[in-house]
This record gives sequence, structure tokens and C-alpha cells, in this order.
Amino acid sequence: MTELKEMKAKRDASLAKVEPKLQGLPDHLSLSSQDLPKSVLTQREIEITENYSVPELLTILRERNILVEEVTRAFLRRAALAHAATNCLVQLLWDEAIARAKYLDSLSEPKGALFGLPISTKEHHGMVGPNVITTASIVGWIGREHGSNLLYDTFWNEGCVFYARTTQPQTIMHLETNSNVYGRTVNPYNRALTSGGSSGGEAALLGMRGSIFGVGGDIGGSIRCPAAYVGVYSFKPTNKRISVAGQRTIMAGKEAIMSTPGPMTVDRQGMELFMRVALAAKPWRLDPSLTAKEWTPYRFTRPLKVAVQWWDGVVQPHPPVTRALREVSEACRKAGMEVVDWDSVSLNHRKDWEILSSLYWPDGGEQVLRLLGESGEPILPLTKFIIQEQPSVKNLTQHELWERCVQRDQYRDAYARAWTNTGAEDGREIDVILCPASFGAATPHDQSRYWGYTANWNLLDYPGAVFPVTTVDPAKDPKDMNYIPKNDEDRFVYELYIPEKYAKAPVSLQIIGRRQYDEKVLAALEAIERAMGRI
Amino acid sequence: MTELKEMKAKRDASLAKVEPKLQGLPDHLSLSSQDLPKSVLTQREIEITENYSVPELLTILRERNILVEEVTRAFLRRAALAHAATNCLVQLLWDEAIARAKYLDSLSEPKGALFGLPISTKEHHGMVGPNVITTASIVGWIGREHGSNLLYDTFWNEGCVFYARTTQPQTIMHLETNSNVYGRTVNPYNRALTSGGSSGGEAALLGMRGSIFGVGGDIGGSIRCPAAYVGVYSFKPTNKRISVAGQRTIMAGKEAIMSTPGPMTVDRQGMELFMRVALAAKPWRLDPSLTAKEWTPYRFTRPLKVAVQWWDGVVQPHPPVTRALREVSEACRKAGMEVVDWDSVSLNHRKDWEILSSLYWPDGGEQVLRLLGESGEPILPLTKFIIQEQPSVKNLTQHELWERCVQRDQYRDAYARAWTNTGAEDGREIDVILCPASFGAATPHDQSRYWGYTANWNLLDYPGAVFPVTTVDPAKDPKDMNYIPKNDEDRFVYELYIPEKYAKAPVSLQIIGRRQYDEKVLAALEAIERAMGRI
Repeated sequence: MTELKEMKAKRDASLAKVEPKLQGLPDHLSLSSQDLPKSVLTQREIEITENYSVPELLTILRERNILVEEVTRAFLRRAALAHAATNCLVQLLWDEAIARAKYLDSLSEPKGALFGLPISTKEHHGMVGPNVITTASIVGWIGREHGSNLLYDTFWNEGCVFYARTTQPQTIMHLETNSNVYGRTVNPYNRALTSGGSSGGEAALLGMRGSIFGVGGDIGGSIRCPAAYVGVYSFKPTNKRISVAGQRTIMAGKEAIMSTPGPMTVDRQGMELFMRVALAAKPWRLDPSLTAKEWTPYRFTRPLKVAVQWWDGVVQPHPPVTRALREVSEACRKAGMEVVDWDSVSLNHRKDWEILSSLYWPDGGEQVLRLLGESGEPILPLTKFIIQEQPSVKNLTQHELWERCVQRDQYRDAYARAWTNTGAEDGREIDVILCPASFGAATPHDQSRYWGYTANWNLLDYPGAVFPVTTVDPAKDPKDMNYIPKNDEDRFVYELYIPEKYAKAPVSLQIIGRRQYDEKVLAALEAIERAMGRI
Repeated sequence: MTELKEMKAKRDASLAKVEPKLQGLPDHLSLSSQDLPKSVLTQREIEITENYSVPELLTILRERNILVEEVTRAFLRRAALAHAATNCLVQLLWDEAIARAKYLDSLSEPKGALFGLPISTKEHHGMVGPNVITTASIVGWIGREHGSNLLYDTFWNEGCVFYARTTQPQTIMHLETNSNVYGRTVNPYNRALTSGGSSGGEAALLGMRGSIFGVGGDIGGSIRCPAAYVGVYSFKPTNKRISVAGQRTIMAGKEAIMSTPGPMTVDRQGMELFMRVALAAKPWRLDPSLTAKEWTPYRFTRPLKVAVQWWDGVVQPHPPVTRALREVSEACRKAGMEVVDWDSVSLNHRKDWEILSSLYWPDGGEQVLRLLGESGEPILPLTKFIIQEQPSVKNLTQHELWERCVQRDQYRDAYARAWTNTGAEDGREIDVILCPASFGAATPHDQSRYWGYTANWNLLDYPGAVFPVTTVDPAKDPKDMNYIPKNDEDRFVYELYIPEKYAKAPVSLQIIGRRQYDEKVLAALEAIERAMGRI
């Protein structure tokens, strides 16, 4: 197809701008890309892109101890390298970013809460700018120019630099990243594994530190799963804190299950910064669907009460995940927190998936399948999985839709009551749930076929933060050869675990709060990282 | 039908409990029922039911200067009188209320924020209690027992007394109150006029001071229109502040347009009390769809900026409404407020109605029409009007539903931007909109066929408070004989105005705030009533 070729040529052209050219790339990339930067980038570039947390980088930029242009060039080059290693970019904004950086450097005073910060962005979100094309990974949408995006407008007004745009999968509804438009993105720790999805381009870029501050979107795990797979931080807020206004997506107007943008960053403070800056702009004055509430930091006045979800009642997590849960909960207990078990079994997460998967595609997927059909692009395996292989997915009548919304609300009510009931005896309800971010580390390609550990929280609209904990160690994390799977999904996941395949892959966990208790989730994560000795 | 007869007999039996019996009722009721209390009730009953605002009554109850039982009996008798005059009740809870009152009197200390307060309730909401049957005015639902209702549970826990349950119309989607189950409720100021709807039973009861604190529900004006038609206060909060959990309604699971409960009270403070008490219970811990925000009173730090909506660009309000707008806006200006005009014309309220009426019945009304058909009950004229006579109403496919939701959101965005733009020049955006609560005073029966002055704010999900301003005075409010109607609805409304027919009918106005600025709306109303010299 001509358009597809032109689009790929455009991407290549944007990457060819890199100056100086990337040198030192091996002919054959090894499984892990983690050693590439030191052979390709300059010492100074490595220092700029590795030595600072998000707040630290902002400080030296604000204090003008470094030029925005120098920072921008370092991240541009490192992003290009990340792309060479993982296929994570759809466009490198070389000229635009450098022009922006020069402008910011020319100001007599630094301005804005994000002054000079390079921000990487998910393709279908679009943003300000003359050369912004968004396809949402749909071949038939190639060439569509984009308008502005409310969230990105805010960041722009606060002085950031947009420099790299990242891949997402077909339909933006895989927990991996592969599309006919942009191809497959791989994991920077192991190219035989996925970088997750749908914000898997961001994840691969962040996992290479080609970005330290990115924007993802999440309706079933699309921020949290990829972040977990590359060992960075991420946060899915409650819906309607952060605006989706300006995104290009399928199924506009569908509302039974919503998506939300959120931060993917290399440190915890970056997430809080994202939320604070986005909400300080009072975006609900332009997008009235949003909750009118600025970021309001939460302070604990006593040790946390944490519930641990060891499994979700459907699928047993892989051994390294269970070990991570054990290590973190033990640290919490040692730090004086109360740690209890979370009973997912009686809450019936399997039912949750039946409702959720149906509400993802209330038209049975007809609109998107027609869109794919119009250009003749192949339906990828994980698109088939999430639409055609889910028994509950069908084109619903209005009455069927209402019935499923009632079921959804009953599930939500039951969960809220269960949470409230944790305080029934001692008057002290749990603060957060500590749980897996996925059943395991990043999976081999096309195998991310169980969404339960992230998607359950989308059905409930509970905020969730993902943080890195450990890496897979075949010696510590042997396969349990005596385990008898409890159902088909459990068997599929059990059989997926072959320790050596995942060696050194990041393992992350998730902190979940009640709906709308976003600030509390990030405060809890800070307390837990303190308990882990990280602060 | 046997069930219908039995239900009516049950209602009659509940009213027959009144002791002492009502005496002094004339054989033929005159148009206005306002003079009835003094010929039927005792001086003491009149004192109890008329002399106190909601906070004042609560104070004497809490200080035990009066027994809960005496208050309860006075309101029970007055409610029975209101029913005799207007047909506003579905059930008088004589035994239950007195038992509750005796229990509250027996406590060693008064307990709860609503200690001893009689609260009247809309039938389909249901509530705690063994004899609570809810039909939602559907003949086929006669006899259905009710579970509890989250909002009413809260009020109950705060020590209130439930004593009277009130009527609503067929489908609960008329701005009047008439059903095959309970018959027609009339206006206590003029029985040739409607008491409005759908919370028209509440309105008639409050308009007779048979209640001073009632609960309505609103999806198109159902709290505000009836309150306006009887000259009491009412407030439709932003959706998802107050829970609908436990109501019996048609179309459960539909979510494109939502309804909300809210207060209908004889004074402004009653509304604030309702909101404060309902939210102090943190109901979102049991109904997670709610906004997690307690009532947070708003304080103005400078004179208000008020926009006046003189008309909505579709229908010209009747002369007494325009006079009320003039009087109130003049008072605001004199009190130092900035008063500007609100431009509804360019915002296209007609489009709003097309979207909204379609989203009221995304199944084309099939479910409810089938329900009515099952028992063979007649479809009433205003049911025909709101379902069958609206060209936009049809059974939508999922894609058509999405399209209308997109249109709805575009309308909401445009309105939000228009609001924000009022501050573009001087940095000072308007605080509230002052507007009609209806195109006129209460209409003759079956003529409430233009919803624009309330329903527009439901589509936008903006909070709105209605307050009494004046009464129709044919001398001050002559018909404009030179007016040329601009469209069919405008002609219909214009022809409806014959000054003498409305003489002395209450005329009310409405204060509208941005979505989620509920507290600001009630604060603005207080400021405006102060400007009017009422405080």
C-alpha cells in the first residue's frame, strides 16, 4: 500500500535527522539492549539521561545549570537508540524539539512547572504541532492530521519539550504492542519478550531511559502492564481526573468502560508531578466531564493497613511475582504496617472479566473490524483474542447493554462493600491493596492473554500505581512442578512459565486504592518504598 | 383490575388512620387550597407546621422543647389535609411514624442531625420499613416490596421520621403528576393547574406545608419544576453527589443521562442541611459511583458576577417570569453585583433537546411501553408526548448511541468553553446563571410540554437551585399582544398565557452553576436572597 510505505518513509526520515548519527550499533542485537547506550552514546549523554530523577533534572534546568537544548539533544539521541533496539517510535521530533529547546533557552527567565522537560507521547493521543499525524495504528487512518490535546496543551504551557512519539498496538487493545502500521515493539531487557501494551512504545523507550517522563493510556492495563514489564513506575488514576480530550480512538462515544491517560516515569516523584501539573490547570473548565479537584496530597497519620492479593481466584501468578509479594509485604510488616490477606475468590473476578470484555466491545467489535476491513489490513492474533475469542463479546441491544451495566454496578457495589467490611471488626478499613501488576514478568510475544491483574481495577475504576520490585531469578523462582492448574486460563499461564526464558526480566507490583483515592495510592506507595528501604 | 383496587384501598386505609379525623373540609373545594388549613387544623397544629424553618424546628426538637410525637402528629394531619386537597399521597405512614416518634422521644439524649424531623418521600425511591411497596406508578408493578435506599438509610440513621409518601406520574417522566395508579395531583394554589412533576406529590405536599422537608428526583426538571410551581425551594445537585441506590425505576443500567435525588424544602437552609447530612455519611463507601466529596461550603470573597438568561433561544418565557428576572437582577445590581446577559441563542438549546430526548429513551421507549402494555394500562398524554411525539426518539443501535453521546459531549464542551470565555476579557468569569425555572407559572393540566428551562441543565449536568420570587399578577403581567412567536414551541407557549388563569400562582427562578460547583450555587442563592432583602 502506497500510504503505508509513505508513512514508514516519513518515520525513517524523522529518525534520519539524528545528528551525530548513531554509531557503535552491533550488526546483530543481543537479547538485552541494556548495554547498548554505553557503546553508542557519549559519556555526557549518558550522564544527562541517567543521572537525574525527574525533579532533579527539572531543578538543574530551572536553575539553568544546563541548556534545554543539550538535554533535548541527549534524549533525542537516546530515543533514537531505543528505537533502533526496540522499534518503539513512530516519529522523532528532531527539528521541532530543538527549535522548542532553543526558544526555552532564549527566555530571560525559566517559565512553567515543566520547564525544559522532555516528554515522550503515545501516538494516538496527538498533541499540538504542525506535523502531528495520528493513525491510532489503523492503516485506514494513515495521514490524518491531529488537532490539539487538552492534557498535552497543559504540559506545553508549562514549558515541556515534545521530542518523541511512541507506538501502540492494533485497536490499542492488546497488552502488547504490534500493529500493521508500525510493526512490533520489543522489550529492552529481552527482545524475545514483549514490552507490554498498549503503551508499549512508551515502556520500551522508558526502559532504555530514552525518556524519563512519558504519557500512557489505560483501559485494561495499558499503562501499568507495559511499565511493569520494563521496571518503571506508572499510575492509572481514577477515570475523569485526566482528560482524554483530543485523542484519536475507535468507538468515540462509548462510555460503559472508559480509558484514562496517566504517567509512566522512571521515578515515583515523576508520577506525582504529572498529576499535580495536569490538575493545577483546572482542566474541567474546558473538559466538563472531568472531576473538579486539584491534586490534593494525602498524608498518613498512622502506619498503613495493607491487604495482599496473593492471587485473583482465577490465575496463579508466576513464582517471581509471588516472591515479590512476599518480599514487599514482609518489609511492610517489619516497618510496623498491618498486613492482611485480600480475598479475591469470593468476589468472583471471573465474572468481572465476562462483564468487562463485553463492555469493551458493546457493538461486538463491528466498528473496528469494519475499519480494519476497509484497508484490508490483517487482523492480528491479539485483536482476535480480545474481540473474537471472548464468548461474551457481541453486538448488544440497548436492553442487553443496560443489563451488563447493572451487572457491572453490582460488581462495583460488592467490591466497595467488601472493602468497607475490612473495617467492620476493628473500625479500621484497609488503606490499599498490594497485588500483582500481571501474572508474571513480560511474556513472549503474542502470549499476553490474561488481563485479570490489571483489568479488574478498570472495571472497578480504582486507581493503581505500578512500581518495580525485583527481576526474575531462575534460582530463586523455580517452577512449581506439583501445581495443578484450576482452569484453562490458569493452565495457559502455568505452562507459560519456564524460568530461564524470563531471567533478569523486571518484576513489578501494584498498589490499588478505592475509587477516587488517587492521592492516597501515591502516598501509600511512598510509605511502602520507605518500608522497602528505598527512601 | 383487582390489584389496582386493592392498592387504592390500602392507600385509603392508611389515610383513614388519621386521628382526630379531618373536619371542616368543604363539600366543594375551591381553586386554591391555601385557606383550608385554618378551617381544618388546630391552632397548635398550624403553629407547629407553619412557624418554624427547618433549622428552627430541628432546634426546638433537639432542645426537647417539643415532643417528636406532637410534631409528627401535626404533620401527619396536615399531610392528610394536603392529600384531600391535591391528591398528593400514596401512603400515610400513621402507625409507623408515631411509633418512630415515640421511640425518639424515649431516648435519653436526642441523637442525629435530623432528630425528629418529619421527611416526606417520593414513592418510587422506597426506603426502610416493612410496609413499603413501590410501583414507580406502573400498574404492573403493584405489590412489589421494597428494600432499603441508601440516602434514606442515612436520614433514618440521623433520626428523622418518615411519615408520608408522595405521588409521581406514569414513567416518572412528565413535568406533571398523573398516573393510572394514583390519579392526578393538583396544585395547592390552583387546582386547575398542575403541581408539576415528576416530584409533583412532594410539591403539592410542600405547597400546603404538609411537609417542610422532602426528597425529589430530577432528570429533566422533576425536582425544580414542581418546586417552582408551588413556590418552595429545591436543588438538583450535580449527578453522583447523592445516591440513587435503592430506587425502583424503569431502564436500570441506562447511563447516557442520569437522574439525581435532591431536596425540596420550604427554606433555603433546608437544602443545605440535606446536602450536608447526606454527604457527611460518606455514601461513596457503599455506592462507589458517587463523587467522594463531603459538602464543602463555598464562600464568596467579592460581589458575584451573574449572567441572566432572559430566554433560551427557543421559547420566550411568560411575562411574570420576565418580570421576576428583571426584579431579581435589578436587586443584584443594586447590591453591587455585576450583572451581564447570558447568550443562549448561539449555544443552540434546540439541538440540546434533540440529543437529550433521544438519550432519555435509547431503546425508543420499548421497555416502558411493553411494561405498560403488559397490564393494559392506558398510555397517558404526557407519556405519548415525551416518547412518541419526539422525532428523535428511537431504538438506537450501539453506533447511534455513541454518536449521540459524542454530540452530547460536544454540547457540554461548547457550554463549558462559553462559560470560561465570560472571563476572557477581564479575567473574571461569571459565577452563576440566573434563569427561569420554567417558561411560566404552573400550567393547566397536560400542558407541560416544553422542558427546555430545566432539562438543558440536566444534559449539561449543571447544579440548579430554584427559589420563589413572586406570584402572577395580571395587572403587572399583561400578555404581549404584539409578540410574534418564532417557532412551533414558542407559539404553543405563547398561546398558553392567559394572565387571569394564572393569577396568584407562584413564580420562581433558578440559579445555575458549573458542573460540580454545587456548593457555590447555594452560596450564590444566599447572596442573591440577601440582595433581595430577604436575609
